[in-house]
Amino acid sequence: VVIMKIPSQAKRVFEGKIFDVYQWEQEMFDGSRQTFEMLKRPDTVQILAIIGDKILTVKEDQPNVKNRLGFLGGRVDAGEKPLAAAKREILEEAGLVFSDWELFKIYEPFRKMDWKIYFYIARNCRKAAEPIWDSGEKIKSKKLSFDEFIKIYSSEKYLGGDFGADLLRIRLDKKKLKNFKKKLFPFS
Amino acid sequence: VVIMKIPSQAKRVFEGKIFDVYQWEQEMFDGSRQTFEMLKRPDTVQILAIIGDKILTVKEDQPNVKNRLGFLGGRVDAGEKPLAAAKREILEEAGLVFSDWELFKIYEPFRKMDWKIYFYIARNCRKAAEPIWDSGEKIKSKKLSFDEFIKIYSSEKYLGGDFGADLLRIRLDKKKLKNFKKKLFPFS
Repeated sequence: VVIMKIPSQAKRVFEGKIFDVYQWEQEMFDGSRQTFEMLKRPDTVQILAIIGDKILTVKEDQPNVKNRLGFLGGRVDAGEKPLAAAKREILEEAGLVFSDWELFKIYEPFRKMDWKIYFYIARNCRKAAEPIWDSGEKIKSKKLSFDEFIKIYSSEKYLGGDFGADLLRIRLDKKKLKNFKKKLFPFS
Repeated sequence: VVIMKIPSQAKRVFEGKIFDVYQWEQEMFDGSRQTFEMLKRPDTVQILAIIGDKILTVKEDQPNVKNRLGFLGGRVDAGEKPLAAAKREILEEAGLVFSDWELFKIYEPFRKMDWKIYFYIARNCRKAAEPIWDSGEKIKSKKLSFDEFIKIYSSEKYLGGDFGADLLRIRLDKKKLKNFKKKLFPFS
């Protein structure tokens, strides 16, 4: 599968707070031309943070969304590397520093949008500072065992699309399940 | 989980070919105010079309995406009901008329976008016309058995996010699997 990209000749026709809109002329299979449209938004990071034998998850209230299951993370700033964004976010949000990082997977959830979600595994944690919560967020953190984590985050309660589907594929395959557990907890 | 909605006081700040952008002032938990942004796009329909003991699926080339697995379907026009759109699309695309329709599920794949995907099951088929293919699409149709369908559309090859995850949950549960098969093929 080839994911659609915004072509270099596309013009930015709108610049928003989060979303920019691009348009371009596209030649169709029959030779006719149409205006195509795609969106671009900042990439984001999500962190599977390992603390002891648990995985740090969050349940988040935002002004318009209640009880959203997820992970610590956030937007990658302009010019920032995704890994740097992940380290910054988890320090800002939870006051935690991790010394062992691994990229788990990059998701591109929406075909007509230039948006990558980087999922990282963060291991070897130490507390570095007090957490600073964003004004618009109410986050409750919860540490889950591997079994709790894989059950909850592969259920319908977690609206994580492709990551949720990957967890389900891991659950369906004993070998994948063992390897994934080893990836999260290499020394247990 | 409460899905975010575009509030009534939001202003449309951009009107695109597919995507409209809305913004509004949102009071945060600490009393400060921020500009929030959401997108709106036409809803779409996807059809699980049953033909005999098979499910009609498609593999689609678009000018910028190759070999995308999916189903017949398309956009709901302004003022059109989703079911009417589904009937129109399958007649236009495949020249088929179905007399027995059931809404399987409505997905809202993207939190910051007002976009619903209606998945319908269509049964009791007759051929009505020759298919008319869109100038920008190259669609190859493929009829799959239930076992082929559930295997392929719950694999990583199908980038169907929440529907793919639902198929995986169905595969994980023998009772759900039986019920889903009965829903697609009630008379077999």
